[in-house]
Amino acid sequence: MSASARHADGEADAGARGGERFRIGLLGHGTVGGAFAVLLDERADEIERFNGQRPVISGVLTRSQGDFAEILAEADLLVELIGGLEPAREYLLSAMRSGKDVVTANKQLLSHHGEELFETAREQGVRLRFEAAVAGAVPIVRVLEESLSATPIERISGIVNGTTNFILTEMSAGSSYEQALAQAQRSGYAEADPSDDVSGRDAAAKMAILARLAFGTPVHLDEVSYEGIEHLHGDDMQYARELGLGLKLIGTAERRDGGLSVRVHPAFLYGGHPLASVVGPFNALTVESEAITEITLSGPGAGGRQTASAVLGDVVSVMTGGARPPAPPLALPLIEDVASAFYLHLDVADNPGVLAAVTQALGEHDVSIKSIVQRGLGENARLVMVTHAVRESSLRTAVDRVAEFDFVRSTPRMIRVIEEEFI
Amino acid sequence: MSASARHADGEADAGARGGERFRIGLLGHGTVGGAFAVLLDERADEIERFNGQRPVISGVLTRSQGDFAEILAEADLLVELIGGLEPAREYLLSAMRSGKDVVTANKQLLSHHGEELFETAREQGVRLRFEAAVAGAVPIVRVLEESLSATPIERISGIVNGTTNFILTEMSAGSSYEQALAQAQRSGYAEADPSDDVSGRDAAAKMAILARLAFGTPVHLDEVSYEGIEHLHGDDMQYARELGLGLKLIGTAERRDGGLSVRVHPAFLYGGHPLASVVGPFNALTVESEAITEITLSGPGAGGRQTASAVLGDVVSVMTGGARPPAPPLALPLIEDVASAFYLHLDVADNPGVLAAVTQALGEHDVSIKSIVQRGLGENARLVMVTHAVRESSLRTAVDRVAEFDFVRSTPRMIRVIEEEFI
Repeated sequence: MSASARHADGEADAGARGGERFRIGLLGHGTVGGAFAVLLDERADEIERFNGQRPVISGVLTRSQGDFAEILAEADLLVELIGGLEPAREYLLSAMRSGKDVVTANKQLLSHHGEELFETAREQGVRLRFEAAVAGAVPIVRVLEESLSATPIERISGIVNGTTNFILTEMSAGSSYEQALAQAQRSGYAEADPSDDVSGRDAAAKMAILARLAFGTPVHLDEVSYEGIEHLHGDDMQYARELGLGLKLIGTAERRDGGLSVRVHPAFLYGGHPLASVVGPFNALTVESEAITEITLSGPGAGGRQTASAVLGDVVSVMTGGARPPAPPLALPLIEDVASAFYLHLDVADNPGVLAAVTQALGEHDVSIKSIVQRGLGENARLVMVTHAVRESSLRTAVDRVAEFDFVRSTPRMIRVIEEEFI
Repeated sequence: MSASARHADGEADAGARGGERFRIGLLGHGTVGGAFAVLLDERADEIERFNGQRPVISGVLTRSQGDFAEILAEADLLVELIGGLEPAREYLLSAMRSGKDVVTANKQLLSHHGEELFETAREQGVRLRFEAAVAGAVPIVRVLEESLSATPIERISGIVNGTTNFILTEMSAGSSYEQALAQAQRSGYAEADPSDDVSGRDAAAKMAILARLAFGTPVHLDEVSYEGIEHLHGDDMQYARELGLGLKLIGTAERRDGGLSVRVHPAFLYGGHPLASVVGPFNALTVESEAITEITLSGPGAGGRQTASAVLGDVVSVMTGGARPPAPPLALPLIEDVASAFYLHLDVADNPGVLAAVTQALGEHDVSIKSIVQRGLGENARLVMVTHAVRESSLRTAVDRVAEFDFVRSTPRMIRVIEEEFI
């Protein structure tokens, strides 16, 4: 909408309806920005009925049009849908310093400069909303902020990247990694360059944001350890099926050993796990807390219209006056080395004494085997083991030791197994 | 806390901390009320850190102690955990007429007198919060109110009664209805008199509340058609297993034929349905909307501490200034007779011509068969059919006609089948 159209509308509306207008400056008009403008138009009547104010777009900034300062001056709230670090960061900081509330869907920015943005919002007493930055239409941010402020959170586990969940779903139906990735690209679920998704980095950014919310501790993307799905084999999926397990890319943020562990890695999930049944490009998050046991939220993780709907939800929450500025940070130490059960996959020569040598080497590093399957493959054998919970550092040392044996035929593979049940 | 202790604390706090206190009048101190007081005490520091005000209980009303007028006068907000219609209704109305915000967990009251309470909140410009009335710790109310005001809702389907879901889970593992009910009672999931749960009436009250929220249309409990689980047989569970279906007690509120249908009934769910994997005493709700596709929330449906956590979440949302008074109602007409696929179970004499007579009688009432299984049982045979979507009234007429045939050996049983996939 042009500035002149806006002014004309404003006068007409104010005269005819006597209704109050809530002016939104929109930064960015790509897939999500365009979908947001359409959705806002569709929902303006209903939002006005609920909130007494009618939301209108008072200015749009794109690469080729609009003046930031002018758009800012004329808006009650800015919606940032440009993406990337700059100029998005500078725009959001400027807006908040002018006392304006802001809504953003920018996970990259929040996982790099979250604390600066939170601090500015707090100093200025303005709202900074970002539901769409984490899990698309799944309202995890508001649930963490509001419902769960009543209860101390122990752990958040989530499938927060729809691309990798789509690929793993295809792989569990028999596709190779390459076939599944190509299918994801054809279906529009994966970018031409999928590395941010398949490396786990996109999920790590989202977990950094969620960890800040749930535990109050500032976490930078670089402090999240992550591992992607590129190294997973069809063999792993097959063992998962045989063992009744699901193989998912899981983000975790949890209290551990007096600190906070935030990490992303593939994991085998037992069938009863609330995330085990999440398939296709969906996102899901399970929040565990002593007082509530656990709640799980799931839904589409991306898509222009879904993301736009989360952005509009944030706008409405600012209009209703909810959502105070963020609380000051706490400082839980970040824990890197956490214990977990592991699946371990070894190809070895099928000689006498091999199994004894492997289990002894593992045992010397406190790795205790819970179950083991050995299969003959001609002159070789495949050992698939599930360990009891062990620190990742101990297991890595033990596996490095095992890899040195001359009877080992391929690089050992290790994948975490999530078997704890909170309830 | 006694009034004198409160005053002493108040002065000490105000002097020592300079912090602002947010005073809560607590009506009822049973399982949930007691758990709420404990949880509030545990979480007061954290809530103060986030909100700047410290929540304190300024007065408690029980059957044997406390004066309502005095508690009301000294509170910023009333929490009603007495339950039942009166005096809960009168207390809430009085509080709102005094300009106080209120939080309640009282589904019975809301499903009978919701519109009177909403109207009073609106007139007085106060907040009326009731997250705990619907699905325990599952934050469906705030998600509907806030996130989803951005998107028009098409349908809510839910498992909103943990007792019946526990019983059906036990039955699907082979227990009879009587065994499963006894187990639920031993485990504390069912009352000595379970009729409100197993009849579907408790779920109907919750669906009435959700329908008002999601569609703006006032719905009284008496306007919700409901059917319970008492008449389900082990046979039905066995067929469900064989067909790869789950059998659940499902509440539905949806736009249909230009109106609104709100109902509760047992239903077969296809394996991919997001509610099919919800087991034990859990609750779950799926919200469908064009803009978001669907989101599902699940978690524990009851329990004193879980419910208390939802109540405290509501208190915090009032403290943060969110949650405007309810919008004025819309008036979608309520639709009673909706089309659905059905499972139909008939025991008949194993004579020539029986199958033809049955299918012809069904066909004359527009009931078309999608699949049919016939099993011999000595002189009798069992027919298990799944129909295409058909209006319930047509199916009932058709089944009444079939029941009159002299070859029919038992009362026909019909159970809805939910096979539509939104996505």
